[in-house]
Amino acid sequence: MPSYTPPLRDMQFVIHEVFNLAEELKPCPRHADLDADTINAVLEEGGKFAAEVTLPLNRIGDEQGCTLDPKTHEVATPEGFKEAYAKYVEGGWPSLSCDPDFGGQGLPFALNQCLYEMLNSANQAWTMYPGLSHGAYEALHAHGTPEQKKLYLTKLVSGEWTGTMCLTEPHCGTDLGLLRTKAEPQADGSYRLTGAKIFISAGEHDMAPNIVHLVLARLPDAPAGSKGISLFVVPKYHVKADGSIGERNGIHCTGLEHKMGIHGNATAQLVLEDAVGTLVGEPNKGLPAMFVMMNAARLGVGNQSLGLTEVAFQNALAYAKERIQMRSLSGPKAKDQPADPIIVHPDVRKMLLTAKAYAEGGRALAVFCTMLLDKELYHPDAKVRAESGELVALLTPIVKAFLTDNGHVATNACLQVFGGHGYIEEHGMSQFARDNRINMIYEGTNTVQSLDLLGRKVLSNNGATLKKFGKLVARLVEEEGVNEKMAEFINPIAYLGDQMTKFTTEIGFKGYQNPDEVGAAATDYLRVLGHLAFGYFWARMAQVALRQIDAGNADPFYQAKLQTARFYFARLFPETATLMRTARSGAKVLLDTDAALA
Amino acid sequence: MPSYTPPLRDMQFVIHEVFNLAEELKPCPRHADLDADTINAVLEEGGKFAAEVTLPLNRIGDEQGCTLDPKTHEVATPEGFKEAYAKYVEGGWPSLSCDPDFGGQGLPFALNQCLYEMLNSANQAWTMYPGLSHGAYEALHAHGTPEQKKLYLTKLVSGEWTGTMCLTEPHCGTDLGLLRTKAEPQADGSYRLTGAKIFISAGEHDMAPNIVHLVLARLPDAPAGSKGISLFVVPKYHVKADGSIGERNGIHCTGLEHKMGIHGNATAQLVLEDAVGTLVGEPNKGLPAMFVMMNAARLGVGNQSLGLTEVAFQNALAYAKERIQMRSLSGPKAKDQPADPIIVHPDVRKMLLTAKAYAEGGRALAVFCTMLLDKELYHPDAKVRAESGELVALLTPIVKAFLTDNGHVATNACLQVFGGHGYIEEHGMSQFARDNRINMIYEGTNTVQSLDLLGRKVLSNNGATLKKFGKLVARLVEEEGVNEKMAEFINPIAYLGDQMTKFTTEIGFKGYQNPDEVGAAATDYLRVLGHLAFGYFWARMAQVALRQIDAGNADPFYQAKLQTARFYFARLFPETATLMRTARSGAKVLLDTDAALA
Repeated sequence: MPSYTPPLRDMQFVIHEVFNLAEELKPCPRHADLDADTINAVLEEGGKFAAEVTLPLNRIGDEQGCTLDPKTHEVATPEGFKEAYAKYVEGGWPSLSCDPDFGGQGLPFALNQCLYEMLNSANQAWTMYPGLSHGAYEALHAHGTPEQKKLYLTKLVSGEWTGTMCLTEPHCGTDLGLLRTKAEPQADGSYRLTGAKIFISAGEHDMAPNIVHLVLARLPDAPAGSKGISLFVVPKYHVKADGSIGERNGIHCTGLEHKMGIHGNATAQLVLEDAVGTLVGEPNKGLPAMFVMMNAARLGVGNQSLGLTEVAFQNALAYAKERIQMRSLSGPKAKDQPADPIIVHPDVRKMLLTAKAYAEGGRALAVFCTMLLDKELYHPDAKVRAESGELVALLTPIVKAFLTDNGHVATNACLQVFGGHGYIEEHGMSQFARDNRINMIYEGTNTVQSLDLLGRKVLSNNGATLKKFGKLVARLVEEEGVNEKMAEFINPIAYLGDQMTKFTTEIGFKGYQNPDEVGAAATDYLRVLGHLAFGYFWARMAQVALRQIDAGNADPFYQAKLQTARFYFARLFPETATLMRTARSGAKVLLDTDAALA
Repeated sequence: MPSYTPPLRDMQFVIHEVFNLAEELKPCPRHADLDADTINAVLEEGGKFAAEVTLPLNRIGDEQGCTLDPKTHEVATPEGFKEAYAKYVEGGWPSLSCDPDFGGQGLPFALNQCLYEMLNSANQAWTMYPGLSHGAYEALHAHGTPEQKKLYLTKLVSGEWTGTMCLTEPHCGTDLGLLRTKAEPQADGSYRLTGAKIFISAGEHDMAPNIVHLVLARLPDAPAGSKGISLFVVPKYHVKADGSIGERNGIHCTGLEHKMGIHGNATAQLVLEDAVGTLVGEPNKGLPAMFVMMNAARLGVGNQSLGLTEVAFQNALAYAKERIQMRSLSGPKAKDQPADPIIVHPDVRKMLLTAKAYAEGGRALAVFCTMLLDKELYHPDAKVRAESGELVALLTPIVKAFLTDNGHVATNACLQVFGGHGYIEEHGMSQFARDNRINMIYEGTNTVQSLDLLGRKVLSNNGATLKKFGKLVARLVEEEGVNEKMAEFINPIAYLGDQMTKFTTEIGFKGYQNPDEVGAAATDYLRVLGHLAFGYFWARMAQVALRQIDAGNADPFYQAKLQTARFYFARLFPETATLMRTARSGAKVLLDTDAALA
């Protein structure tokens, strides 16, 4: 069974030493009293929960999966999942970053980010049960009526009930404009929903007495397409005015998918037959309301891969130190043993460092984004709020797509370190790779993310938001441009930052003439910008480490940081050389292929 | 369930139009009468077998897996596997390219290559049962005594019995020098073997009445390490002098691995307790003898990924044409439908074409290699034999590692085309990716392949073999250098070919000072050389296609070939830009990382 040590030191490094989170958020009234000790205590306890409670259930969940009783439509989750969830609720974890008005603890989103990273490392499938509740919470918090908030919000905050997002139907995933589920208005102001949903994560289970489904459906008079979609809240059990649970509602699980991974999470087919729901937000404005959930969920998906990258790295590192096989090419290293531990081999180190550099770069980016979320919502300065919101919107598709693609590379590299033993399920390395594979797909495929980034976030305002991010990079370059020790970290991002404007303008110009040019460049473009972001954060982390070392701090943590930064710039960042070339190769070579794809 | 159409047209294109196989092999007495009709008839029948007999068993095999009866140590294979194997034997397929002296049909290896590509597309797990027999056949054919050949070889050729390769033990995979299985010589000239083997593919099953295990073990007086290993043949059942089956031998299956994929193939733990065997070849020379099997097996593993790449492509292409979702960015294409088929999106085409370009490039390389194998063994000109042998030795690690890594990229890209449906097992896309994952590991991990390539095949003779391959490239460049229409295909390989010498010398020089530099550059180097080979074959295919088009041939096949070649050079080949940069970044950045990997 895989092991896991919560990376508390690295989280603290990012939060305190790189971003100085408590100081940055102090202007927000909600976070005025935040201090490092509170943050550290929460992280430590969260890490304990992940390592002690949900990690031991990860292999069990994969082996057992979920079981549907076709008569009762009830789903049994794997052994121990329910009890772990009860402990999670008892510990108050669901409410960590929720609104105090509804029972939340109001702690910064960055803490919830770190908590979830650890939960995802320990057990992605289990973590999706509480994870999906956050999306439902966000949507109801932003768009719910006072009545809806009263009935559902405190229960979601406490974790007593869980939530779902019911979007996909058999014939529509990305293209929600095609959806068919119908909602008929009733005399009492409620609606009756009829339709079929698929791929509903945590869509049915035995871990909570009620499930709050957020469902997209069409009103009878709705316009066709995506402008005719409304959002409804449909509880599994009706909820009485006093908050107690009533009769069973007409939303039932009729099937569970057999999936490549995340076996422990119930991916439900749900049938709605006269299911009673109430409207959330305005009629026909369900899609924008849903995007409140989606944006949070996209950061959450990136975080799933961050967690898997970290835990895969830890286990591969342990194996590489322990497994002896062959001698180092430069002569025996463990002379008292019949062979050297495989960590002596440069290519094994490359695989390990790939995972480590992606994990630590991803952690910095993800924490930075959640810090921006707090500023966007709670900072007293409107300009800071607006700019933070813009930046997090720009970075969200990068967190989703770049971190999940990197997770694919990293979990597979770590599996490879195990050789044949990586292919055997008992070591758990296969599960990390299989679980990660969905992250590149759901909440908008990574292709959709790249179109969102290049089309909506970059080109639609002529690169104005991109320039704001570029300024952060430029500021660091100016700050450290004359520091010789920082040159190896600064030069690559200075060079790429300079090229970025021309590169973007070029694609924008081509896209203006033919929009398919945007589609042809988008996935490569996203990875280039992802590397610029990672390069920026790696340079900042190296900056902090160098300053500590220069000040005489002998903690090997800082040397480790510099070594990983060097590896990142030497071995991963140069991917941009190919990406810019392929992104520039244009749409024609992809689209003039009717004979090849006949 | 996935569908599959044998790519007969493309195989014929490669065999007849690109390589002119029948003509090339005519000087070999064994192949003097070979003609195109025979080749085409064999391919067609082979394709039918794959599509009709083993394809329908692929999902069943994945779902059911194999079952061990712990009392009898017997293994039940999935439903239908046994019957399919009986048909395979009945059809005479095992003997296709085997030596006529032992009942083989003596057809070129390229035909067996294509047959196996199709079998792997249809069902990799099933195909490994007959596939492993080839390794045992090769080893006994090259090193067996007349008695061993008499007892085992004809049964392996006919397929009546199957074979295995028993190398790995729990504490040794790559490092066979560590193996512990013991062989005690007996008065009658036989040996009694005791030990434990793991990861033995097709190691136990119910498809044949006997299994011929080729086992590596140590003699009592053997020197330590890899120079003290001998090869033995150990049948599951003793074989009497008349060839009939006798008593059960002391080699038993004690466990089956639970794996990420290839569930239909029994990956056996085998315990040998006084198992009776006979020595194959000379004492303590088992490893070189085993390498006869390994080299063939490595080409076979590349072929597994080639098959999976092709079948994944076919299914993703069909889905992309059928699944409607969103509109093209450049305006609706299927105006009579509520949305466009997803094949209109440039990034979907990119994913499809990636798989197609890797499949067709891989097919050309693999067929070329098996053509060389025939020349190496049967060509009357000693110089041709020697040069063919050298070239195939150079290209073998590329076939193994480049094709399996490409298969990983391709099967995952094709899964991604399916969106969420790709993650659901019933569509079979997940299985292609999971089955492919082992190909990057077994028969020598891809890291081991890269060290074999750079260390043994390239640097050990100062690039002499590489220069021979370089001459092929140079010849094509000279031939087509003035043809403007070929410029887009010739220029990239001319440029990379020129750089290759300097690049190789540079690494060789650094490696001379510090052997770890070779390990640090090897995997990137292998991919660069892989692209040079693919570029060469894509240019040759484009050359044939252009000539046909210029001659007025209107078959869209040739347009398709050009379009795919253009895609390959625009989108996949530029990976070399990054790879050469990272390969050059050296060992220090990987090895000076003790703090980071503490």
